[in-house]
Amino acid sequence: MEHTYAVIMAGGGGTRLWPLSRQDKPKQLLPLIGQETLFQSTVQRLENLFSPERILVVTMEEQAREMHQQVPSLPEENYIIEPAPRGTASVAGLAATILRKRDPNAVMAVLPSDHFIRNRDLFHYLLRAAFEVAENGYLVTLGITPTHPSTAYGYIQQGDPLSGGYNYPAYAVKSFKEKPNDKTAQKLLRSVDHSWNSGMFIWRADVILEEIKRQIPVLSAALADIEAAWDTAKQAQVLKDRWYDLKVETIDYAIMEKAKHAAVLPAGGLGWSDVGSWESLFEVLLPDMNGNIATNNKSHLGHETNNTLVYGSISDRLIVTIGVDDMIIVDTDDILLVCKSDQSQSVRDIVEHLKKHRQEKYL
Amino acid sequence: MEHTYAVIMAGGGGTRLWPLSRQDKPKQLLPLIGQETLFQSTVQRLENLFSPERILVVTMEEQAREMHQQVPSLPEENYIIEPAPRGTASVAGLAATILRKRDPNAVMAVLPSDHFIRNRDLFHYLLRAAFEVAENGYLVTLGITPTHPSTAYGYIQQGDPLSGGYNYPAYAVKSFKEKPNDKTAQKLLRSVDHSWNSGMFIWRADVILEEIKRQIPVLSAALADIEAAWDTAKQAQVLKDRWYDLKVETIDYAIMEKAKHAAVLPAGGLGWSDVGSWESLFEVLLPDMNGNIATNNKSHLGHETNNTLVYGSISDRLIVTIGVDDMIIVDTDDILLVCKSDQSQSVRDIVEHLKKHRQEKYL
Repeated sequence: MEHTYAVIMAGGGGTRLWPLSRQDKPKQLLPLIGQETLFQSTVQRLENLFSPERILVVTMEEQAREMHQQVPSLPEENYIIEPAPRGTASVAGLAATILRKRDPNAVMAVLPSDHFIRNRDLFHYLLRAAFEVAENGYLVTLGITPTHPSTAYGYIQQGDPLSGGYNYPAYAVKSFKEKPNDKTAQKLLRSVDHSWNSGMFIWRADVILEEIKRQIPVLSAALADIEAAWDTAKQAQVLKDRWYDLKVETIDYAIMEKAKHAAVLPAGGLGWSDVGSWESLFEVLLPDMNGNIATNNKSHLGHETNNTLVYGSISDRLIVTIGVDDMIIVDTDDILLVCKSDQSQSVRDIVEHLKKHRQEKYL
Repeated sequence: MEHTYAVIMAGGGGTRLWPLSRQDKPKQLLPLIGQETLFQSTVQRLENLFSPERILVVTMEEQAREMHQQVPSLPEENYIIEPAPRGTASVAGLAATILRKRDPNAVMAVLPSDHFIRNRDLFHYLLRAAFEVAENGYLVTLGITPTHPSTAYGYIQQGDPLSGGYNYPAYAVKSFKEKPNDKTAQKLLRSVDHSWNSGMFIWRADVILEEIKRQIPVLSAALADIEAAWDTAKQAQVLKDRWYDLKVETIDYAIMEKAKHAAVLPAGGLGWSDVGSWESLFEVLLPDMNGNIATNNKSHLGHETNNTLVYGSISDRLIVTIGVDDMIIVDTDDILLVCKSDQSQSVRDIVEHLKKHRQEKYL
């Protein structure tokens, strides 16, 4: 594990957890599960595996300061500022460029900052196994064994097992599949060769840069200029100049789908969630005997209330529910959301409506 | 109408509209319907019929100041402070004592401060008719023609029509009935001789004081002492001393049930409600096309939301509902209530729970 690094992608916005997640307060900076923010949990999850100097965070200018406050243990120079959002492939390429310059033998795990993983020991074990496969030149991704017919995740179909005598079963990637409809999701759940696409990737820096050169030459050329200017006085200017010209490219579509040596390690029992909707919190938080979850709030009084999530973010506020079933209640300083659990995806429609009517203060 | 007066009973507390109504902010002081508080509406409803000097308010020390701020048009000396709550019969007796001293021929309407009446013209017409009957020595009450089988109201059964050639039909009271169960309420609705007990009474001051002397001699004796001390230096002290010794007595049970000459004027079409529960607001407020009522709040965004009442009392706060049916949502500074409409009576259980656990700040 001598040349291993972790890269946390923390630039995202996202409105699916609105009204808690906002333009100036994205999901990863919020204490959605327990006392820590998702970003803090993500770093803590890595701390036994990587010393702080080996953890890189790629984020936006607006968020870097708060991230550093939340996690003062990471060196300030390990926060890489992305001048503008250009997709996960661009972020991965930038991080690989920087790491290869530091360490030509760097092997890196590229990880989202805003996911939840309950089983840390298993996660560590899997990362070690993935590094082992990656060192042999594979672009590795962790697949999550489906636990229900989710239409919220993309799927990865595995092909033949890799030869090489790995400790953990690894497979060639046969195909990536977009979010399915209900019927297809049922089918994929019953199949044994599909996992959820977790967005976690493990590879050698030189291998991913080679793959970018082959598949996204424009990005590769920009990265070459950035590499040349890195650690010089021109670093910031060149990064900015070249970054703005890039197109948005994602790892899944621009790299993995046509990669030469893509591999997947399917993992069950991680207790993983992308925390992509309010409803997903029911999967990762432990409900009381009535199925209720009162998170971030000690003052919920439920009377004949079942399967209801109450997220309160105002201190000293009492939330009372009477005769409420299958609801999500999110109580923030300036917005109250009361939403039927199975309609939590409509939160996006509300956000769109507010954008259209220029209600900036609620976005 | 030369000797007519109005007495507004405004001492009540009540927790049925919790968390909006609170110990220090009773229902009558709240803007439940429209911009005005129920107390303001009650006074405005009387202004065409009574000059301000002829409107008396009986209330508690704690509320008098805010009432005077809400309705500066009433003379300060017309606010009578009840030293402690001793029931509507005691209040009516005190008001009658004061009015008879001012005007031996006083005829008075005793009215709750926290009810709603949509049709003011009809109300004026009915009050005039009731005064006409009262001048002949009757204890008159307004009965409300039931519009649904309510179990929330007491009922009055009417007997024979009064002779006397009144402009409006008046009947002897046959009996008072307590709040019925569902089955009885259905039966009472179908009968033609039962009305809801509105708690509005009209009578001559001398007649009610005579009736109190006959039925509640202890109160009568206290009132005699208070009358003797009234408008002297000892007024406040005597009122206090005698008041604390009284028992709680209500007009319905201690006076009307066994009164010699009780009469009822049944009234339909008043658009009356005692605003006694959150659910009752559905009867008096006009819903939008989806059956929703957003009162006191311009910022409700409902998506697939039906028959839901949203009462917001925090300015600039956005309330979003998605997939919500038949709910009552009350959003106050320190408490949020989300309650199924037909369970709004359980609000009392919550209040009891908070009392038991000494959560004073939420009461």
